[in-house]
Amino acid sequence: MSVDYNSKEYFDKMKQYWNTANYLSVGQLFLRSNPLLKKPLTSEDVKVKPIGHWGTISSQNFIYTHLNRVINKYDLNMFYVEGSGHGGQVMVSNSYIDGSYSDIYPEITADEAGMAKLFKQFSFPGGIASHAAPETPGSIHEGGELGYSLSHGVGAILDNPDVIAAVEIGDGEAETGPLAGSWFSSSFINPVTDGAALPIINLNGFKIANPTIFNRTSDEDLRKYFEGLGWKPYFVETNEPHGTDVDEANVALAKAMDSAVEDILAIQKNARENETAETATRPVWPMIIFRSPKGWTGPAENGKGLPIEGSFRAHQVPLPLSANDMGTADEFVKWMESYKPEDSFNEDGTIKDEMKEMAPKGDRRMSVNPITNGGIDPKPLDLPDYRDYAVDVKTPGSVEAMDMVVWSEWVRDTIKKNPTNFRAFGPDEAWSNRLWGAFEVTNRQWEREIDEPFDEHMAHNGRIIDSQLSEHDDEGWLEGYVLTGRHGFFATYEAFGRVVDSMLTQHFKWLRKASEMEWRKQYPSLNFVDSSTVFQQDHNGYTHQDPGLINHLAEKKPEFIREYFPADANTLLAVADEAFSSYEKINLITTSKHPRPQWFNIDEASNLVKNGLGYVDWASTDQGAKPDIVIASAGVEPTLEALAAVSILNKRFPDMKIRFINVVDLLKLRSPKLDPRGLSDEDFNNLFTTDTPILFAFHGFEDIIRTIFFDRDNKNVDVHGYRENGDITTPFDMRVLNQMDRFDLAKEVVENVPGLAESNMDFIQEMKDMVDKHNHYIRLEGTDLPEVNDWKWTPLNK
Amino acid sequence: MSVDYNSKEYFDKMKQYWNTANYLSVGQLFLRSNPLLKKPLTSEDVKVKPIGHWGTISSQNFIYTHLNRVINKYDLNMFYVEGSGHGGQVMVSNSYIDGSYSDIYPEITADEAGMAKLFKQFSFPGGIASHAAPETPGSIHEGGELGYSLSHGVGAILDNPDVIAAVEIGDGEAETGPLAGSWFSSSFINPVTDGAALPIINLNGFKIANPTIFNRTSDEDLRKYFEGLGWKPYFVETNEPHGTDVDEANVALAKAMDSAVEDILAIQKNARENETAETATRPVWPMIIFRSPKGWTGPAENGKGLPIEGSFRAHQVPLPLSANDMGTADEFVKWMESYKPEDSFNEDGTIKDEMKEMAPKGDRRMSVNPITNGGIDPKPLDLPDYRDYAVDVKTPGSVEAMDMVVWSEWVRDTIKKNPTNFRAFGPDEAWSNRLWGAFEVTNRQWEREIDEPFDEHMAHNGRIIDSQLSEHDDEGWLEGYVLTGRHGFFATYEAFGRVVDSMLTQHFKWLRKASEMEWRKQYPSLNFVDSSTVFQQDHNGYTHQDPGLINHLAEKKPEFIREYFPADANTLLAVADEAFSSYEKINLITTSKHPRPQWFNIDEASNLVKNGLGYVDWASTDQGAKPDIVIASAGVEPTLEALAAVSILNKRFPDMKIRFINVVDLLKLRSPKLDPRGLSDEDFNNLFTTDTPILFAFHGFEDIIRTIFFDRDNKNVDVHGYRENGDITTPFDMRVLNQMDRFDLAKEVVENVPGLAESNMDFIQEMKDMVDKHNHYIRLEGTDLPEVNDWKWTPLNK
Ligand SMILES: Cc1ncc(C[n+]2csc(CCOP(=O)(O)OP(=O)(O)O)c2C)c(N)n1
Ligand SMILES: Cc1ncc(C[n+]2csc(CCOP(=O)(O)OP(=O)(O)O)c2C)c(N)n1
Ligand SMILES: [Mg+2]
Ligand SMILES: [Mg+2]
Repeated sequence: MSVDYNSKEYFDKMKQYWNTANYLSVGQLFLRSNPLLKKPLTSEDVKVKPIGHWGTISSQNFIYTHLNRVINKYDLNMFYVEGSGHGGQVMVSNSYIDGSYSDIYPEITADEAGMAKLFKQFSFPGGIASHAAPETPGSIHEGGELGYSLSHGVGAILDNPDVIAAVEIGDGEAETGPLAGSWFSSSFINPVTDGAALPIINLNGFKIANPTIFNRTSDEDLRKYFEGLGWKPYFVETNEPHGTDVDEANVALAKAMDSAVEDILAIQKNARENETAETATRPVWPMIIFRSPKGWTGPAENGKGLPIEGSFRAHQVPLPLSANDMGTADEFVKWMESYKPEDSFNEDGTIKDEMKEMAPKGDRRMSVNPITNGGIDPKPLDLPDYRDYAVDVKTPGSVEAMDMVVWSEWVRDTIKKNPTNFRAFGPDEAWSNRLWGAFEVTNRQWEREIDEPFDEHMAHNGRIIDSQLSEHDDEGWLEGYVLTGRHGFFATYEAFGRVVDSMLTQHFKWLRKASEMEWRKQYPSLNFVDSSTVFQQDHNGYTHQDPGLINHLAEKKPEFIREYFPADANTLLAVADEAFSSYEKINLITTSKHPRPQWFNIDEASNLVKNGLGYVDWASTDQGAKPDIVIASAGVEPTLEALAAVSILNKRFPDMKIRFINVVDLLKLRSPKLDPRGLSDEDFNNLFTTDTPILFAFHGFEDIIRTIFFDRDNKNVDVHGYRENGDITTPFDMRVLNQMDRFDLAKEVVENVPGLAESNMDFIQEMKDMVDKHNHYIRLEGTDLPEVNDWKWTPLNK
Repeated sequence: MSVDYNSKEYFDKMKQYWNTANYLSVGQLFLRSNPLLKKPLTSEDVKVKPIGHWGTISSQNFIYTHLNRVINKYDLNMFYVEGSGHGGQVMVSNSYIDGSYSDIYPEITADEAGMAKLFKQFSFPGGIASHAAPETPGSIHEGGELGYSLSHGVGAILDNPDVIAAVEIGDGEAETGPLAGSWFSSSFINPVTDGAALPIINLNGFKIANPTIFNRTSDEDLRKYFEGLGWKPYFVETNEPHGTDVDEANVALAKAMDSAVEDILAIQKNARENETAETATRPVWPMIIFRSPKGWTGPAENGKGLPIEGSFRAHQVPLPLSANDMGTADEFVKWMESYKPEDSFNEDGTIKDEMKEMAPKGDRRMSVNPITNGGIDPKPLDLPDYRDYAVDVKTPGSVEAMDMVVWSEWVRDTIKKNPTNFRAFGPDEAWSNRLWGAFEVTNRQWEREIDEPFDEHMAHNGRIIDSQLSEHDDEGWLEGYVLTGRHGFFATYEAFGRVVDSMLTQHFKWLRKASEMEWRKQYPSLNFVDSSTVFQQDHNGYTHQDPGLINHLAEKKPEFIREYFPADANTLLAVADEAFSSYEKINLITTSKHPRPQWFNIDEASNLVKNGLGYVDWASTDQGAKPDIVIASAGVEPTLEALAAVSILNKRFPDMKIRFINVVDLLKLRSPKLDPRGLSDEDFNNLFTTDTPILFAFHGFEDIIRTIFFDRDNKNVDVHGYRENGDITTPFDMRVLNQMDRFDLAKEVVENVPGLAESNMDFIQEMKDMVDKHNHYIRLEGTDLPEVNDWKWTPLNK
């Protein structure tokens, strides 16, 4: 039986479906019992403190109703990204109507009792969040921190050619930097191999307490803005100026939706029939601008006669109704009755078949589209054997290599073996970060014009996306990509990783809460590769120095965070093997792109990664005895300088018993009291002893090391980390500025080992002199001392 | 004598002025001696490792030359914001030509010897940065982290009606979220009371390794984009497609500049003659889109025959010339000679008068415009006496108040007393953060249409700007405002303060490096008010919880960071008095907007702030004796719960000697080894003892407290901070979730005081039972236990 999706009858049904969703959404805001209002409303029925958001709800339910319509009409594979976020009822209500909510949460039955529970649990202690949170069926995006809806939607549809992400965007959200920058996403979607994102601006005119800029922007200017950005806007006007006729809105939005969907299908058909992934270029993708009054269908005015509907006042809870203040009970009941619940629900609270019919069926329901729960066809990465890429380190320090360059060959082959579910993202830095090997088999995906030889390594189809200078957009795409079951990494300058600090927080929060949901499938880890680090910033200097992401992430729940400091290329390879096959983590990998001595053969490196850290016998002279000093290092330059210090010390103090420990997986050092993976005190003490002085050379700020040792027996640790000193200067001078150089380290060892300093003031002076010599030399020559540049590791006297 | 600014003769001179600037800029990149190339170039003359950026230089010098022209022609008060940043030579070269550089740095004389020094110091150890850094005359913006040029420029011209900020924006920079969002700035500039920002897109087509999106966007689409955003773009085409005729470019850019400047002057004249600050609305401000080839006038091709000029390859150092590789020496010399240095410099290296003449004179020089060094007429804030706003706290806890609301009255009067140099900024949250008092005397500045009663508290002229939902833009404006000598604050939800983590890093870095420049005047502090904190997020929950800014800022150099945790309104008032009269700091103030008991009378509060922390006698029972337990608190809810725990303990264990310490200025707890302001060990031990168990109730993540105690004698501290647990739940439950509630705290005290637990298992069980009771109750009622809600402080038994 064919359905006429444009008939008055169908629109009327849609109207009632919308009423149903609105009824359920308002009920969630206020009620704890009596959901069908069969009995007169009492204060027992009302929450003591109704909390949540109303203003965004009815417009979103309207959009959702219309998305259902086009899914049905065109048999679309579509899912919903709730940008506004702060209106979690929308996705919950629609999932409840389509039956998926009760499938997932069987205690929330599809009847009156279940509806009462549904209402009560919302924004309620022990219940569910007021946002489109991990517990919300169909959501991959919480929308708590506004700005990332479009980049998440676009990330999700990359390599998912059959999927359309319907991205609802708040007009307030559209004012954020990250969202404003994410319109450029359209330059990166390949119409042959990727799906489509359909942005829908929920232009309800207001945010928390202000009108929105778009609200006071003419349609003409909005059209220009979006056309200029390469999108084709379809306008849906419904409030002239503050009231709205639903029937008109139904027709208008249906028309816009049809046009937008037909555009998408036509673009894809055309590209897929007439082009290849390589030849396809950027089409002009459609989008929808939907104006409606904030708080549409809700209370019109407040007690002071000021408008609520169509005003910022609709943002949160629009009536002062609560168990302790029933003054607006009648108004509330009238409001609920305006949705004609009798047309939506049967006597027993089950939803009428006519309403259920409106929802798509099976996996076509946006609430259970597989893309929103682990992805459409999730597969682990097929990783090449990292050992095949190993640098041949016959003796420590005998060869030099660029860790990122070595690693990029492994990346290259990972790309080859996983041609449709692995991607690299970055802000214009993939080349600068020396992912050179990867460019042997792929290019940067970019759908705008390519103009060689002025451009290089660009293609309309490629596994690297780094041609927008936006940490926000690039990271957002990666998040969307891994949240839909695929794999990838973001490579960036360490300092500017911090531009997305808060995005990482939100991603972590999502992972954590999702992990508590039994029905949620696992997510591949998000890999964050910090190259071009604080310790070498040739062309830039002080502004480009900030290793603070380390502590930022370490403050999160330990189950979800890993922080790796591979000291050379082989360790980086072994780290990548572990990180890229992991799930549910944010892996922070701090590495170097500059030529550096290589220390560990691949077996040593593998063991370091397996154990997280290790005793380095060739750099130690304690040979089973209690050491005079423990020297630990984490990071490329700290390890290099600590080893050089060992070398100096060993020459001068051949009897000094040095124990050298290299730390790769930093957070393993934490006490098991704070981190379930932490080394036991026994293991820790075996390595670090309970009282021997420790010199810890560390890549980042020092506080995290102090925090780690705070919980350990041996607190006799002298930390040398990044001391927030920087400049445009030589590589070695960056270490000197932060007292991370071999001379400073060697000096401090002598100062810290009891009894040594007094009789070796000459050595201490010598080290100071070397630093002076260095300072003098570089200011004259602009390059490092030859004895520093040419230094090579030689076996120790034991 | 009148000058014909459009004559061929003038343009020819401009061309040679531009040559001069280019010559000086390229010289800085490569040379360390022989600046006039009088002698044949030897490897002695060339840097060992030339570093810096070339690609952006010549286009910027061209823009700068033309800005000089309009300054001269229209007698403008203009300064330069170098968005691209990574081309510090531009501002240095122009300052050297106009004489200001030698005035500020007398050793860089205006002759051959000085020029040699000028060249050598650039991007050289001990020299100057490669960016438009604090050491660069005329700069208020470094451009290291890209994205904030326009918001800085706009912040600077607020309340500076006579100033025009010429904001150069990289076409790569324009792809960042923050920059893309900052075009909305035009909705907030009042044409009567504010100055103007003139954005100039340096559309050189490329970024580091990629073409830019704007480069592959048609003029038509660019026009739409900017018109849609409310700007009027003037196009200057110079590369067709990759070559450029300078004479044509001169005429074309002059025309665009004239038009843009005349537009600005006309807009302002019209508004100022025909409107008032209150009636003026948003004009369409002009902007300039300047297309030119990246690396214009530089090397055309590299060794492989691939283009450099007009390609991404021009970004950094475009020739492999160095002291150790003189293979391109001839090419370099030809390049330098193409700038006809003989027409720019006299034999002795002084700059020819014809060139110097092209620069504006005195303060009209952009390099020394007073706005770029401390501001045009910098004044300290005239602060009302904070004591006049004090809550009358007769006995501790006897009154309740909302700290932000009380404080907002002080803000109100600060606004009144400082009507043109004090502003509040925020992302749509001024009302939600309860700055209600301020709205009694001012409104939100917003130049678009105002539509009451749907809007409230909007005006075309007001001291609060919070009508764009963009932490980036709002914070950027504040930074621009304080960097030009005015005062203000940014108020935000604590969690979303983190959206601008990296901006705060960059601001701190600027403050720090600027403080090392003797010639730089002081900056008023940047005040960052975190309200709506982790411990109460009624409508939002877990996504809105993140106190990590505390540790983020604490990792910076201590001289520039203050972190305040006022526990009540009076303390907040005293904190504000200190913070808002301070200079050169980032003050992080963490406060609450919810009704809370008030603890300290204004004298106590003042002392707490003066000393940074203090012994609270009415909450202590140690009376001069060694305590059994030290209880310390920092923050509103930690103090409330810690006091409630004291109350419980005192009732049950009247003999327990409790010492209560409230901490306001957290970083004072640090060891003087790490922080010059830190309490001496002696003072610290007097307060915290050397071994008594300490319970520290803290607002943020716990690691910072552990780090602090790591350096102290008494490490016997049990920290209760935010434990990354959250949900949408009751206010008290948020504390329970993080074990920050009175019951958990009291229980742990008994567990920590030696010998107490064994004989008081019943008490421990009682506390656990209370938590269970709470958990049960809130899940049923949705609100906190009456005994928690109604709890009041009562005097202790001593
Ligand atoms: C980055 C960020 N800043 C601030 C907030 C606080 N906030 C929550 S909702 C809101 C207004 C959102 O307005 P809009 O996007 O138009 O959504 P709607 O009108 O649909 O509620 C704001 C500012 C936030 N959630 N995220
Ligand atoms: C936020 C941020 N991300 C990345 C970088 C690294 N970076 C430095 S320059 C540059 C390209 C800038 O291109 P554009 O703005 O066009 O400047 P221009 O072409 O004038 O050099 C990039 C990505 C940065 N400085 N800041
Ligand atoms: Mg809105
Ligand atoms: Mg550029």
